[in-house]
Amino acid sequence: MDQQTMKQTLEIRKRGVERTLGSCLEHTSIPDSLREAMEYSLLAGGKRIRPVLCLTWARLFGACEEPVLPFAASLELIHTYSLIHDDLPAMDDDATRRGQPSNHVRFGEAQAILAGDGLLTHAFSMMLSVPLQAERVLAAASEVARAAGPAGMVGGQVMDMALTGLGVTEVETLKRMHSMKTGAMLRVSCLSGALLAGAGSAGLEKAKRFGAALGLAFQVADDILDVIGDEQKMGKPVGSDTKHSKLTYPALLGLERSRRLGDSMVQESKEALSGLQSEEADFLTALAKYVMHRTE
Amino acid sequence: MDQQTMKQTLEIRKRGVERTLGSCLEHTSIPDSLREAMEYSLLAGGKRIRPVLCLTWARLFGACEEPVLPFAASLELIHTYSLIHDDLPAMDDDATRRGQPSNHVRFGEAQAILAGDGLLTHAFSMMLSVPLQAERVLAAASEVARAAGPAGMVGGQVMDMALTGLGVTEVETLKRMHSMKTGAMLRVSCLSGALLAGAGSAGLEKAKRFGAALGLAFQVADDILDVIGDEQKMGKPVGSDTKHSKLTYPALLGLERSRRLGDSMVQESKEALSGLQSEEADFLTALAKYVMHRTE
Repeated sequence: MDQQTMKQTLEIRKRGVERTLGSCLEHTSIPDSLREAMEYSLLAGGKRIRPVLCLTWARLFGACEEPVLPFAASLELIHTYSLIHDDLPAMDDDATRRGQPSNHVRFGEAQAILAGDGLLTHAFSMMLSVPLQAERVLAAASEVARAAGPAGMVGGQVMDMALTGLGVTEVETLKRMHSMKTGAMLRVSCLSGALLAGAGSAGLEKAKRFGAALGLAFQVADDILDVIGDEQKMGKPVGSDTKHSKLTYPALLGLERSRRLGDSMVQESKEALSGLQSEEADFLTALAKYVMHRTE
Repeated sequence: MDQQTMKQTLEIRKRGVERTLGSCLEHTSIPDSLREAMEYSLLAGGKRIRPVLCLTWARLFGACEEPVLPFAASLELIHTYSLIHDDLPAMDDDATRRGQPSNHVRFGEAQAILAGDGLLTHAFSMMLSVPLQAERVLAAASEVARAAGPAGMVGGQVMDMALTGLGVTEVETLKRMHSMKTGAMLRVSCLSGALLAGAGSAGLEKAKRFGAALGLAFQVADDILDVIGDEQKMGKPVGSDTKHSKLTYPALLGLERSRRLGDSMVQESKEALSGLQSEEADFLTALAKYVMHRTE
């Protein structure tokens, strides 16, 4: 699949996700000020890569998109909560996100902490209400909880803070941190889609392997962009990792070797899809390439 | 059931909960510093009233205790996360909790935010892994997500902050805030136990009604204790509500009318149990009395 066709498909899937995100906080008795803070960050744009991965892996194993949509969208709520909490003064202290003031700059710290808490809990509400077989929903939501939790994303953020400024030179340590901090959620985005569609164990293995490779490629690309990217396109100041003394792949391996690592992960993600001949697999291959070579 | 027998039963159930809480973060790849911060608050004692309610309502409808235990314990993880986040400088800025330094005083703000996030996500991991019928687990966990979320506990905290210092005099506003902030989780502690045990709709209604009445009694008692309580027994400074200009029932209604409101809720909780003749129902009646008249 060429990049243009991939981008068209991506755009169509994103539209379904945006529609779901735009309405998921309606018709509930959420206090207005809280809903406003939650929507401010949730509807600020973004690649929506996690929901798209979930939808695509669900389609790959024959599921209809409609009932999977709220589950897929909930992954974006979890991602958004993590960004809001990461940006807090006590954490990374970032004043901008996606080209606008961070949540705590706009609404104050207390509201930002609660907006994050609200998004995380509402994500589980959404996940647990999808009209699919109970066993499948349970298995998928359970994997998401694990990936988002203290042995996944939350633990990764703790490791990241512990490593920042230390100047550790072990690339394996960096990989382990990222496999928790960003990798776990990208991996489970694929895995949960496959679980919701009732994939067998071979299919689930492919989803995990693809997701893990894509997760690493994604992080490497992110680090590279922080060095060479365009501030306006990125929506955050270029060089902010250096400013925060964050450990990155380019800092550790140099740009050239980082690019090669990313490319090898794109290759690995392609191999993970072997045996799955379909338009969806072609889309995923093209998506992995795009993730590695994106400019924003 | 007399208060002494009730307290013995309470003690026995608490012991099962403590055992589960003590081991629920073992054997997972949680970074040590994060696990330490999570356990610091989780294992700092407490009445464990939410897990005990869940276990008791599950027993009331014939469930075995063992498979319900991790689900019940997860309610305490959610309660603990909410205390850690509420104590943060940006929120209530409380330096002590349960007689020891608050989580952020001991571990720093960043770690405290993440310890809270970790407890909340791990709670869902635990809930979604209990070895009971998938439909029941899904229904119960879904209710917990709703109760803990932006239309429940998180929304209640937002309302509480908005009301603090305003000097609002509508008791209905105060009731609505508490029914979200503390009531929703106490209600769902009962409801989720009944759901896990497969109770029918009449039983579920009783659980909700009992939980709602107990929740209000609990809050009224808490407010009264803040005025007249013993600092050492409470583990937090007496009069802290006044210090924070928190709206309370005694401030709004006076002590005497607050006591009468609490007592009427104990009566209401007893009526909610009508038709349920069993040792468990007797225990719940005695527990409601104890909640209202406790001294810590």
